[in-house]
Amino acid sequence: MSQLTSRLTATEQHHALLEDELRQLPLPVVSAFGTGSQAVSFEPTGEVLSTADAGRIGEIFPQTSALNAGAVLRGTAPLAKRPSGKRVAVLFSGGPAPGGHNVVVGLKQMLGDDNLLLGVRGGPKGLLNGRLEPVTDADIALIRNSGGFDYLGTDRTKIKTAEQFAQVRAVCVAQALDAIVIIGGDDSNTNAAVLAEELFAGVHADGRGVQVIGVPKTIDGDLQIRDLLPISFGFDTATRVYAELVGNILQDSRSSLKYWHFIKLMGRAASHVTLEVALQAKPAITLISEEIAARKLSLAQIIEQIAQTVAGRAAKGIHHGVLLVPEGLIEFVPEVKALIDELNEVLAHHGEAFAALDAEGKRGFVAGKLAAAAASLFASLPVYIQDMLLAERDSHGNLQLSLIPTEQLLVDMTKRRLKEIDPKIPFATQSHFFGYEGRCGAPTLFDAAYTLNLGLTAGALILAGKTGYMASISKIFEGGEPLAIPLAALLTVERRHGSEAVVIEKALVDIDAPAMQYFVSRREAWAQSDLFASPGPRQFWGPVARQVPLSVALNRKADGLLFSFGK
Amino acid sequence: MSQLTSRLTATEQHHALLEDELRQLPLPVVSAFGTGSQAVSFEPTGEVLSTADAGRIGEIFPQTSALNAGAVLRGTAPLAKRPSGKRVAVLFSGGPAPGGHNVVVGLKQMLGDDNLLLGVRGGPKGLLNGRLEPVTDADIALIRNSGGFDYLGTDRTKIKTAEQFAQVRAVCVAQALDAIVIIGGDDSNTNAAVLAEELFAGVHADGRGVQVIGVPKTIDGDLQIRDLLPISFGFDTATRVYAELVGNILQDSRSSLKYWHFIKLMGRAASHVTLEVALQAKPAITLISEEIAARKLSLAQIIEQIAQTVAGRAAKGIHHGVLLVPEGLIEFVPEVKALIDELNEVLAHHGEAFAALDAEGKRGFVAGKLAAAAASLFASLPVYIQDMLLAERDSHGNLQLSLIPTEQLLVDMTKRRLKEIDPKIPFATQSHFFGYEGRCGAPTLFDAAYTLNLGLTAGALILAGKTGYMASISKIFEGGEPLAIPLAALLTVERRHGSEAVVIEKALVDIDAPAMQYFVSRREAWAQSDLFASPGPRQFWGPVARQVPLSVALNRKADGLLFSFGK
Repeated sequence: MSQLTSRLTATEQHHALLEDELRQLPLPVVSAFGTGSQAVSFEPTGEVLSTADAGRIGEIFPQTSALNAGAVLRGTAPLAKRPSGKRVAVLFSGGPAPGGHNVVVGLKQMLGDDNLLLGVRGGPKGLLNGRLEPVTDADIALIRNSGGFDYLGTDRTKIKTAEQFAQVRAVCVAQALDAIVIIGGDDSNTNAAVLAEELFAGVHADGRGVQVIGVPKTIDGDLQIRDLLPISFGFDTATRVYAELVGNILQDSRSSLKYWHFIKLMGRAASHVTLEVALQAKPAITLISEEIAARKLSLAQIIEQIAQTVAGRAAKGIHHGVLLVPEGLIEFVPEVKALIDELNEVLAHHGEAFAALDAEGKRGFVAGKLAAAAASLFASLPVYIQDMLLAERDSHGNLQLSLIPTEQLLVDMTKRRLKEIDPKIPFATQSHFFGYEGRCGAPTLFDAAYTLNLGLTAGALILAGKTGYMASISKIFEGGEPLAIPLAALLTVERRHGSEAVVIEKALVDIDAPAMQYFVSRREAWAQSDLFASPGPRQFWGPVARQVPLSVALNRKADGLLFSFGK
Repeated sequence: MSQLTSRLTATEQHHALLEDELRQLPLPVVSAFGTGSQAVSFEPTGEVLSTADAGRIGEIFPQTSALNAGAVLRGTAPLAKRPSGKRVAVLFSGGPAPGGHNVVVGLKQMLGDDNLLLGVRGGPKGLLNGRLEPVTDADIALIRNSGGFDYLGTDRTKIKTAEQFAQVRAVCVAQALDAIVIIGGDDSNTNAAVLAEELFAGVHADGRGVQVIGVPKTIDGDLQIRDLLPISFGFDTATRVYAELVGNILQDSRSSLKYWHFIKLMGRAASHVTLEVALQAKPAITLISEEIAARKLSLAQIIEQIAQTVAGRAAKGIHHGVLLVPEGLIEFVPEVKALIDELNEVLAHHGEAFAALDAEGKRGFVAGKLAAAAASLFASLPVYIQDMLLAERDSHGNLQLSLIPTEQLLVDMTKRRLKEIDPKIPFATQSHFFGYEGRCGAPTLFDAAYTLNLGLTAGALILAGKTGYMASISKIFEGGEPLAIPLAALLTVERRHGSEAVVIEKALVDIDAPAMQYFVSRREAWAQSDLFASPGPRQFWGPVARQVPLSVALNRKADGLLFSFGK
């Protein structure tokens, strides 16, 4: 065996050259935490949050609402007495996002050797089943600066029934837990708010409760609160992965001179990911769902805009280009949303008769039951899309929209429209969907440092005895400041089918915000010629390693693109 | 307008932060070229190349064969007298590959201000049409270390008719060309060999010819000659882009714990790309076409192996994994190749009767015409694959195999087989194709330095008065040495339908070479558990920036993974 092969085999697991080096990479810490494990006290910033449903939320969450009173806190002076002996559980919830592992690293660093950190295997379900194991120093050394949630795994179980609450209480008692940290998105942080209230007191024999802290994760970027929470973690890494790929394809399109690439980007509802990638790579066409909804565009109008751009470039001899479409587009086109709602009604009321038909029979059956506008839209869609819209609903009676190949739908409808405009316009296409590629990449330096500091903040909140808060780092261009955002103050009440559900409302793209305004001011120029950029792979060393998302910098009115934590 | 938005707008074209920094990044130069523009003389290394068809090639290529005599040359001492006033054209040919721009940069640097470099727009077709423009210092500053072929564009025109040769001669005279550099793959370097012979002498009024030099490009990696040409440029960057994506998806599969991802990787025929990505990321299953052909596996046997691996992991509670399949697989499965050949025959002989049928009629028609084995294989395929196999042939009567979604075929057939083995085995899947994402990314430090030095070598060969050679850099782990490989000595003769065609044979994966042997020795362990690595994004700064492909290091029996150029 050669020297190289024996070395490769000996260091096999998680040992790419880069992974080994990243484990050693030092990360900046915000000043409040000293050299990285200084516990701090939290004081009000003066800012108080509430939603329109504050009254009702106060009734549903009496204890945490009363205690936290909507006040945002900042970590300031060193804590007078650093507690010890605390037992803290941490879990991942929902889809993975780059940086999750560093939250665990930060937590462990803040809790130190005189408190115990336990990792929950397999997400919320693992918490219900009591699958907890101590996080060791060896684990920390291995997961530092690595992407994914694979250290603990994750799942999407929502903890909401009395039976589930009882299970959690039992685990808290059995494991003598003092606190739980939930790393997740809007749903998971709603869950954290609910658990903070449920476990507020009376869990342990001496009457003590269990503290609950949320940490804001989602590559979708739909968990953000102005300067208080500039962005959720994972967004930077995911959009940088996608932006590199889109930039590479833009460069390919101008090299090969023959393809239009239609690219769908992950992001369940909001178009933050697509907007960020557009700002970075500047493709010819980018669709932003929120703008389409606000302008009430029809599918035919969207296709007309695309076809006219393709035709306009072709007139200048440019037969290539790139189009970006957010995964959630379909639901934001008002007429399509109306069609889907009508279809859901039809299928709910005629399920059995419908199920007995073959594909052609099904198409005919529903067409006869739809109102004129919906029937006409339905008829205009390619057959494979019609069939998908008639596919089986999930257990909530909803269509699995993520299965619809929006990128291919746009290709096919644009092709049809171009044939009407001028059949001689060349329109060779490739379509792509980028999603899973970006959820577990090695975190950018920003996401790595941000999540380490989020972990430190979550740990500091626990040491300071707080519960019902979400950890955040604000002032990312000015040294960074650890914040605690009261979870209950973020909740609104959704009333559906006569029942109430509390939710943290998703932050959609604000079409009047600076990032969107900049995009709107430039997109015509990008459509007219090849003004694209190729943002390239994210760097961990060198002059651009500290880059942050463009949309975050624009919306924060920053002067530059590099974050700064610490002095 | 904010400071940031005005800066973004002002530096819009090709100005991602990273692109700006990469333009300034210094690159190492092999010692032979001094500080980077020292012309050198070329001396025989003692190594002489030939193929089994050397006799016939000597007849077809009398002038270049006689002059170069199969001898490999190395660049050594400084050239006694550096020529000036030469006019040199450079063009891209075939699919784009990262690093092409740096070949132009190296050429320009070696030719200096006392010779003129002209860029040919739009590949070989642009040469035929005389689309040449001087390469300016401003162009060089802009394209340095950037990916793609977009500076000049490319195409796939093969120059082979008497009329085309006359066109090239006319352009050579009109532009007073002394030399042409062709940057391309096996076909394009064959073209370079042909042009070197055609333009050997008598092009200009004074009887002089035009020198022709080839530069070996292809992300497929199928242009390699032992230590003489360790790898074609672009392979490193493309495989690093794909390996990062595959590593990210591996990390996602173990985080989300629910999907098998079936991933097809670009590479027309050879499996070098797939083998390299497998070595870097270590997924559960990797198919290597050359091995499947050598072992004469049937499609059913391949599916059985996949299904048994899925079932074996499921028995251990692992319901996720990643499978890699090379784009060219289908043609390497002997029975599928036989089926396609039979279908081509049937379609060639019954074209009209066939064309008149609908899809179902077509399937029945060919099934009745196939021999028993082919008919049985055809019947075992999913209907959408049957339909694709019956799709229109290209102008050469060939099937466009790249359109076949091999990854989806494997998913569907594995699903069917698993249902027979045990219908309770979970098998949720996602499928991907990575190709265009990797052909135009910013070149790795290896590809950037390699191509700069290839450009320097091509330029030095021109200044030294050579023709009919391919530029190469050997000894990539020991400082690097510029080589000239005689093109005619690489050619073989393919006899088809009674006519002769000269080709450079594609270098397929050698299943007995160290890289493949290492893969074979480890793959069972990778299949059994999650021993994957996440190679991460390529770095231009820091400790791992000089990494080379693992397969190249293993096959060269190197002790490490970092290249070294210069002292």
